[in-house]
Amino acid sequence: MKAEYECIGCIIKHTQSLIEKADKTNKISSEKKFEDYKKVISDLIKNLEYGKRPIELSVSQYDSIYELYGKQDFFINEKTNANQIFLEMYDDLFYFIMNSENPLKTAAKLSAISNIIDYGVKNSFGELEFEIETMAKKRKFAIDDFKSFNEKLKTAKKILFIHDNAGEIVLDKLFIKTIKKFYPDIIIYSAVRSAPIINDATLKDTDEINLKELSIPIESGSVYPGTIFEKTNETFKNIFEKSDIIISKGQGNFEGLNKTCEKIYFILTAKCSVVSQELNVKVGEFVFKRDVVI
Amino acid sequence: MKAEYECIGCIIKHTQSLIEKADKTNKISSEKKFEDYKKVISDLIKNLEYGKRPIELSVSQYDSIYELYGKQDFFINEKTNANQIFLEMYDDLFYFIMNSENPLKTAAKLSAISNIIDYGVKNSFGELEFEIETMAKKRKFAIDDFKSFNEKLKTAKKILFIHDNAGEIVLDKLFIKTIKKFYPDIIIYSAVRSAPIINDATLKDTDEINLKELSIPIESGSVYPGTIFEKTNETFKNIFEKSDIIISKGQGNFEGLNKTCEKIYFILTAKCSVVSQELNVKVGEFVFKRDVVI
Repeated sequence: MKAEYECIGCIIKHTQSLIEKADKTNKISSEKKFEDYKKVISDLIKNLEYGKRPIELSVSQYDSIYELYGKQDFFINEKTNANQIFLEMYDDLFYFIMNSENPLKTAAKLSAISNIIDYGVKNSFGELEFEIETMAKKRKFAIDDFKSFNEKLKTAKKILFIHDNAGEIVLDKLFIKTIKKFYPDIIIYSAVRSAPIINDATLKDTDEINLKELSIPIESGSVYPGTIFEKTNETFKNIFEKSDIIISKGQGNFEGLNKTCEKIYFILTAKCSVVSQELNVKVGEFVFKRDVVI
Repeated sequence: MKAEYECIGCIIKHTQSLIEKADKTNKISSEKKFEDYKKVISDLIKNLEYGKRPIELSVSQYDSIYELYGKQDFFINEKTNANQIFLEMYDDLFYFIMNSENPLKTAAKLSAISNIIDYGVKNSFGELEFEIETMAKKRKFAIDDFKSFNEKLKTAKKILFIHDNAGEIVLDKLFIKTIKKFYPDIIIYSAVRSAPIINDATLKDTDEINLKELSIPIESGSVYPGTIFEKTNETFKNIFEKSDIIISKGQGNFEGLNKTCEKIYFILTAKCSVVSQELNVKVGEFVFKRDVVI
């Protein structure tokens, strides 16, 4: 999908939060922060080209930030914290899924719901768990291609699951567990980013949540948020080609993979006006959409 | 006051809302908006210099926007609407002021409170009026130099009131009315911007609220938000010099005039982290501060 002008503002806003993060680790002077911010935006402007995908535009931002502050894992604590919080409700949520009318669809919905959750999440005495379950009961997918997914599952041998953020990867694991419950012979690969980038899941997170008991974790080759096929590694490309179904989580992966392959099912929450317009849904709505290639 | 790196993000965010406004009046293509936004940010970057005041940095943004879309009054409807809403509660609020323990201070507080209100304000069956009165009763100035102001009033002959936004100018008028009630001989000048810029008050607004029945409206010479003394016109400079007290409303005027003249009393609500840090108050707090020149 094409980036709109609003995406520029969004990237710049995000730059600010990255500088804030860097400032927390190693106190930076007011003047240096000013000059750094100016430099990142200046680099970004040079790279802005209409027609590119949003995640392509943000690449230069990360390069500039790394150049300024080194390759830090800025969100390491938030990620571990989010994994921990969701692991605590893992068993309860699996019980909730298996006792629902359509466990597979419920599991898919929980995975979509988890996509709302950004870093800074807190679990206060089961409230978050209750909220997730209530949302799963009350709300429907605004785009619902679950039926075709369900059909394809019956004959699928290999699935590639492209994850998005830490924390929510625990609810992706629940979806994988539910698939394996009904189709134990399907082999599932779990692709995560090849380097720490914002709060996106990496192999460290798949370890923390012991994902390998259900699927095979791999690095996608992407060192930026989202997934652009041409920038993935050979293993990922190979598994992508050979899989019968690809599950793509979140906006970043959607931005990169939208309109590329009909094997893909996008699960996400539309978080901004640009993505929601592209999908023709409202901001905040859940989507389970099979990719359409025109 | 010096602009911090956060100010850059704030200016860029505002650019986006100006493009949105322009888009509403004359539909602009997705590609042109993208290129326009890029151009405005690019111009802005060239103008960014550490040590300048926030409002100085934003000047290039307005120049670029005007260059792209012409000199439009983007907020004309919002301004008239806001004036109308506050005029409706004018008499009630004056009654409230005069029946309070310290009418002058209450009037000053109402003027500060009105500074929270941005465009898009709606009055729903007296709710806003009730909220304003409750706030005036419950909350104190976080910085309170009212005593010294009150002392100076006793001998003052001329006051220059530098206004900020449309809508809130009605509550400034109430403050002026209260001053005139106790000191009918003081001559008050009301400075507004010389051109429509965001929702800042202009002579059109002083006309709409009939300010001239109490004070003498003048244009400050400023065609950008806020007031930078060097960029004001001769009339303004002259009245500035000859006034015994200067009342400066809002953040923009504070950004430009802070630490320049001890005759100034700043009335504002701290709306962002940069201004609140400069003042050492919390975001959202009300300030009645005499200027300090070091």
